[in-house]
Amino acid sequence: MQSAQLDATFSALADPTRRAVLAELASGARTVNELAKPFDISLPAFSRHLKVLEQAGLITRGRDRQFRPCTIAPEPLREATDWMQQYRKLWDERLDRLDAYLAQLQSPTSTEDRDDD
Amino acid sequence: MQSAQLDATFSALADPTRRAVLAELASGARTVNELAKPFDISLPAFSRHLKVLEQAGLITRGRDRQFRPCTIAPEPLREATDWMQQYRKLWDERLDRLDAYLAQLQSPTSTEDRDDD
Repeated sequence: MQSAQLDATFSALADPTRRAVLAELASGARTVNELAKPFDISLPAFSRHLKVLEQAGLITRGRDRQFRPCTIAPEPLREATDWMQQYRKLWDERLDRLDAYLAQLQSPTSTEDRDDD
Repeated sequence: MQSAQLDATFSALADPTRRAVLAELASGARTVNELAKPFDISLPAFSRHLKVLEQAGLITRGRDRQFRPCTIAPEPLREATDWMQQYRKLWDERLDRLDAYLAQLQSPTSTEDRDDD
């Protein structure tokens, strides 16, 4: 279940238009026209992006027939972030070790500063 | 550029087998056979998943012709987490407000405890 939700969430996020829409919705509800304005694509094409976001549960649409304002639905995004977060510590540690190793390579004389060897 | 990388990263993450591979690689390098073992899919199908991860830059393959061990490449994952992280604060605040609102709805008598109204 949760796996299918993660599939849908990551799949929806794999597009710059859809990511931009979510970024815009992070500051509040918007109508479709407001959301579509910055994009140089047809309204039907834009609506398909909204449909993907809606089917993934990342946005909800209001009931107003004419405007149906879009609102961000944070829960699936939080779940996806949690999934990534659980590995972040491991990745960070790995990068830290790599950084330390590269720093060591770049300053071969650093041991000369020490008196303890 | 960064947008294309995010497309590739999120697209690669939109599959339970590929997410499981990354989870396994978080604890160290593995050969393809080691990685494939828990999955009930053909080796060619599994190799296609590895190819997606490799092309997205999420794993690297060793030079050893026979084993070519897989290693996780943390940088793109860190970028994707950072992208999600920048909105997390907004989403968390929204969820907190929702929680507070729901708590208010569920305890209509809570104002009776106060003397200040």
